Amino acid sequence: MISEKMKAFVEGSSVIRAMFEEGKRLASIYGADKVYDFSLGNPNVPAPKEVNEAIKAIVDEEESTYIHGYMSNSGYEDVREAVANSLNKRFGTNFNATNIVMTVGAAGGLNVILKSLLNPGDEVIAFAPYFGEYRSYVGNYDGKLVEVSADTEHFQLNLEEFEQKITDKTKAVIVNNPNNPSGVVYSEETIIKLAEIMDKKQKELGTEIFLISDEPYRELVYDGAVVPWLTKYYNNTIVGYSYSKSLSLPGDRIGYLVIPDEVVDSEQLKSAANVATRILGYVNAPSLMQRVIARCLDVEVNVEPYNKNRELLYGSLKEYGFECIKPQGAFYLFVKSPVADEKEFVAAAKKHNILVVPGSSFSCPGYVRIAYCVSYATIENSLHGFKELAKEFGLI
Amino acid sequence: MISEKMKAFVEGSSVIRAMFEEGKRLASIYGADKVYDFSLGNPNVPAPKEVNEAIKAIVDEEESTYIHGYMSNSGYEDVREAVANSLNKRFGTNFNATNIVMTVGAAGGLNVILKSLLNPGDEVIAFAPYFGEYRSYVGNYDGKLVEVSADTEHFQLNLEEFEQKITDKTKAVIVNNPNNPSGVVYSEETIIKLAEIMDKKQKELGTEIFLISDEPYRELVYDGAVVPWLTKYYNNTIVGYSYSKSLSLPGDRIGYLVIPDEVVDSEQLKSAANVATRILGYVNAPSLMQRVIARCLDVEVNVEPYNKNRELLYGSLKEYGFECIKPQGAFYLFVKSPVADEKEFVAAAKKHNILVVPGSSFSCPGYVRIAYCVSYATIENSLHGFKELAKEFGLI
Repeated sequence: MISEKMKAFVEGSSVIRAMFEEGKRLASIYGADKVYDFSLGNPNVPAPKEVNEAIKAIVDEEESTYIHGYMSNSGYEDVREAVANSLNKRFGTNFNATNIVMTVGAAGGLNVILKSLLNPGDEVIAFAPYFGEYRSYVGNYDGKLVEVSADTEHFQLNLEEFEQKITDKTKAVIVNNPNNPSGVVYSEETIIKLAEIMDKKQKELGTEIFLISDEPYRELVYDGAVVPWLTKYYNNTIVGYSYSKSLSLPGDRIGYLVIPDEVVDSEQLKSAANVATRILGYVNAPSLMQRVIARCLDVEVNVEPYNKNRELLYGSLKEYGFECIKPQGAFYLFVKSPVADEKEFVAAAKKHNILVVPGSSFSCPGYVRIAYCVSYATIENSLHGFKELAKEFGLI
Repeated sequence: MISEKMKAFVEGSSVIRAMFEEGKRLASIYGADKVYDFSLGNPNVPAPKEVNEAIKAIVDEEESTYIHGYMSNSGYEDVREAVANSLNKRFGTNFNATNIVMTVGAAGGLNVILKSLLNPGDEVIAFAPYFGEYRSYVGNYDGKLVEVSADTEHFQLNLEEFEQKITDKTKAVIVNNPNNPSGVVYSEETIIKLAEIMDKKQKELGTEIFLISDEPYRELVYDGAVVPWLTKYYNNTIVGYSYSKSLSLPGDRIGYLVIPDEVVDSEQLKSAANVATRILGYVNAPSLMQRVIARCLDVEVNVEPYNKNRELLYGSLKEYGFECIKPQGAFYLFVKSPVADEKEFVAAAKKHNILVVPGSSFSCPGYVRIAYCVSYATIENSLHGFKELAKEFGLI
């Protein structure tokens, strides 16, 4: 009796989420310390102490009907102002409260902006490998996701193919920097070229093409990598952010959209985002967490635990003969499967209680994603299994 | 550049929300105590102290990655179990965790269930007067909202017209009990008749018709009124609930759906609701608030402040000659406009800094909604203005 659209979704339901459920099942059989669940980007690093301190201070100091009440659908004015100021300080931009829409995480933000922009049949371009949920989000508004195949050499953007795939139906382009699942940071050089192509195509086709930058991993970078701030390179840029990864708050569902004044018809788009927040049933981003964010904008993000994990896992896998690009951001390794059908490798790994996600979930078959946002001990204890796998597949 | 669908939404944007923004503007000019903002169902009663105590206890006692982390898209297993047990205790039902989906408020829950059920062109019946957002929610999934006109005598359900409007395209029926905006509680007699008609029509048409019961005001009842628990009367019933009103947590966005095993294809529908929660970008109901709810299921809801407001406002308006049914639930009065075009009355009221919402926003023109979830002082201070209005319109 469920809708036709949902039937397909339920059948092909998220492999990542299925893995997460499988991990819980295996843990109940073998014990949590004997299951190496690398399936989900669920940060193992606790939220910084400032978050819980802010929560307690807010419920003690602020008025209940304010903390827990309705506000404008786009969020508390003072929180939006604080977010704008924080961005201005970091990126030399000139945003104010009206440029910010507080959202139910980055997923909520992407849905709000896609609902605001897409007419049925509009095309949205994404670069493989990409977070599989983009396909659902675009499909929610009857848009069509157009895929640019992966640059499996450097995992930057395949810009030649990109240019060919822009049509008069292209309404938006999604980039995810640092990238899930590859962990790669798109360089300034890549972004400049991307912007040039989009500017050129806008003129050529007489259309407006929106660049949607999905940046939940912005602060999770290593080796001094710099993530370009995209509104500086291309006018029709909208940024989506989430505190899920930087402050380890994925369950709390808090993030924001930036809609700069430079975006075409920006006033109308801001209104649409406000209304979309309401009618999609979010109504507003969770109020208490909005107030928490206002107090935690300067909290330093601790990437060291992830960096330690990255070094150990990357070093070990390379030693065992696996092929993998060294990620500069996020908390994922995207490892080449030693066998063409990576699902075979995923199944073999599961026999060692190692859960990883097939690359086909990110439109990049032949690879697997390993989310290393787990405890250091989990990585240490999993290494034996990875070594066995390397032997099984003839890498050592 | 925004989507065609959104253009219409932005233009005809929520009158209620526009009033809320207007109230904030007027307050900044005249001072908050000189503006009588009855526009929004934003509870003035603070959240019970147990809520803030639970928040503090949770951040002190529970593990950070658990409080703030991802869980299954349908919510924490233990929270869902606790909600199910609490319902079983109250209503003699037999639910377990799998029957509960934690949602981003009732609005999130309605979107999840409508996304799960509707194919384009499917009809959803609502009884006027109804919360105008139902139209947006049904429209999100290309459903068609079919309206049953108001029973302006008792504000129960116009069941004769209802029966005529059921077709082979009818996929769902939404009831909102106690009702926003009338404050009426649909009686058991009404519900039994409703269920009989739906059962009969299902057989006649060979279809399945879902009854969606939207119950954010369930606990807000007066004079000993009893709100029937609908899953007992009709098998294909889904209940949507929110803690926005009962615990004064509208900004926190926390509620749940109940999908009983008696619903046709219930396993498939539960899976669809789980997936819809994810792909609509909610991902999950806010995690910290889920944990709070588990600790606050037995908190007594304090309706006395609303009851005091109701008595004063209802009594005074009747005294001034206004026509109004005495509400038994929620925190709204639905008052007959003294002039046919109620927007004229709304405009006149605004001149007295009294903000009320036209009934046409609830598909029931000729009435206005007064949300009395404000301070007692606001009501006291507004009475002079209401009396002046009664004089202006010749009621006294």
